[in-house]
Amino acid sequence: MHVFMARGGALESIVTDSPRGTAEFDLIARIRARAFTRDDVILGIGDDAALLKVPSGKLLVVATDTLNSGVHFPVDTAPADIGWKALAVNLSDLAAMGAEPAWCTLSLSLPGADASWLDGFLDGFLELANRYRIVLVGGDTTRGPLSVCVTVHGLVDADKALRRDAAKVGDDIWVTGTLGDAAAALVQWQSGQAIDPSLRQRLDRPTPRIEAGLAIAGLAHACIDISDGLLVDLGHVCVASGVGAEIEVDALPSSAALLLFDAGQRQHLQASGGDDYELCFTAPTAARAGIAGVAGKCGVAMTRIGRIVEGARVHAIPTDGSEWTQPKAGYVHFA
Amino acid sequence: MHVFMARGGALESIVTDSPRGTAEFDLIARIRARAFTRDDVILGIGDDAALLKVPSGKLLVVATDTLNSGVHFPVDTAPADIGWKALAVNLSDLAAMGAEPAWCTLSLSLPGADASWLDGFLDGFLELANRYRIVLVGGDTTRGPLSVCVTVHGLVDADKALRRDAAKVGDDIWVTGTLGDAAAALVQWQSGQAIDPSLRQRLDRPTPRIEAGLAIAGLAHACIDISDGLLVDLGHVCVASGVGAEIEVDALPSSAALLLFDAGQRQHLQASGGDDYELCFTAPTAARAGIAGVAGKCGVAMTRIGRIVEGARVHAIPTDGSEWTQPKAGYVHFA
Repeated sequence: MHVFMARGGALESIVTDSPRGTAEFDLIARIRARAFTRDDVILGIGDDAALLKVPSGKLLVVATDTLNSGVHFPVDTAPADIGWKALAVNLSDLAAMGAEPAWCTLSLSLPGADASWLDGFLDGFLELANRYRIVLVGGDTTRGPLSVCVTVHGLVDADKALRRDAAKVGDDIWVTGTLGDAAAALVQWQSGQAIDPSLRQRLDRPTPRIEAGLAIAGLAHACIDISDGLLVDLGHVCVASGVGAEIEVDALPSSAALLLFDAGQRQHLQASGGDDYELCFTAPTAARAGIAGVAGKCGVAMTRIGRIVEGARVHAIPTDGSEWTQPKAGYVHFA
Repeated sequence: MHVFMARGGALESIVTDSPRGTAEFDLIARIRARAFTRDDVILGIGDDAALLKVPSGKLLVVATDTLNSGVHFPVDTAPADIGWKALAVNLSDLAAMGAEPAWCTLSLSLPGADASWLDGFLDGFLELANRYRIVLVGGDTTRGPLSVCVTVHGLVDADKALRRDAAKVGDDIWVTGTLGDAAAALVQWQSGQAIDPSLRQRLDRPTPRIEAGLAIAGLAHACIDISDGLLVDLGHVCVASGVGAEIEVDALPSSAALLLFDAGQRQHLQASGGDDYELCFTAPTAARAGIAGVAGKCGVAMTRIGRIVEGARVHAIPTDGSEWTQPKAGYVHFA
């Protein structure tokens, strides 16, 4: 029980309330049995706290994000996809800092003890954790409406951290991968249509761009991950850096699946759709060849979509040269 | 908005859904405006992740705990008390490791935007954070049933970390403060009685024993914080250390308020009541004078309540010499 990490009563409560009414069903033992470790974990799951060794010369990078059922994922999402996504959105924050993943904690609120749900959740969570060698070192399980809070820890050289406040006038603006896919899946889901499987995959199993974040460190100036939509998130970079941005809407990279939407809707999804977890970064024009090189090495598309300018707004410029109407939420940051 | 830390839509949603319908009400700006910082925070609230400097030679200590409304605190708990307790239960985990608090993140799920609730919550959270110089470096706000997930980071010398697995046969068993108070408040609350104010204070505003944890490092062998009740939590120490324990029920320290309960109920609350967040630690008999000394310096009572023995069970021995019946939950860990 509290061998996961201290405090609780919570898991005990779950065990007590379980229809099985026995201790056989031990959520934490299930988690612990499947977690792997690495040498810099001095003490992992099983005490009041984890003990971790940070290499000298590295900065610790910490991010935390919670996913709530019905808010951040549809209630019918497969447990494995919830597990994947809860870790992926956090790893995406490490990617946006140019950090290497190291350790994570998991705080899981569950309405009741459900072994098969937990096993499915762990399938997705640990599949992604293994891929990026991020070790689950602790957390807790509590009773409550389904909610997943993950905190991730990464490592970065102080001079290589990618911050939001480092964009410079004249920088190119780049994005990884393609944009608008997750939002397109949500549009199909909300309208009751069949959801294109590749779009659904992008919504349920976003790929954190860890390799890309590491590869552009030293080349890029500012970086952010696209969780709320390109215009909104690029707006954060502009505010933090004291600059403006011009985006060429026609240049926004599109997946094949998104081409089935008409041009207007597609461009709206690309510019304003959230949940893609691609990186948006700025870099000096002198870095173009270098970025093309690392994109090839990572196997991740990196597309130039605009430039950093003086000012304090994000301008999105469609084909006909007129200025786009930026979604209202985007303006909030410029008020 | 996402200047707190990346990803979201969540806060945007709260803003959009707010009856005020404006961006004036910015939860994160409210948090950021009130958070303080310290020199080892290279980058705090306002980017995809925080950047933190860990002193060389120190281990990083990480714990996370979630409090859900109606599960971990009564739904009518004052926002300031929820803020205090959410941080306190996490700081208690650092105390149990002998660690010095450094940084924390806060992930707050709220049913809606409520500025006065948030201000009250921050009153309690930041009052405690200031007391222990733990800096809020990031987190997120999301929409959902009221839930507070806090992750704390501390620092400890590798050779001073207090672990659960270090109890030795022959050790004394000690506890800080008094036991059973928080559980007594819950008993009064559940029975509809007026709650004794000093007991209610213990339930709502537990004191993490940070100073005590730091002071006993070097003297104590094993340590745990009492969140689920002495017998259950001491059971974790026994399992981890491969030992048994004998507790003298009459020796358990009692507050004045608890003396109003009859002896049987009082001893049950002391032995099995959770939520006190006192420390239970073991130490060699040679450390008795040293422990008395540091207790005086910290101003925290430290009481000897039993000893570590061979075996694999926690025996609680009341006045008449008979063996107590350990609460069933306590046995789970020995199965």
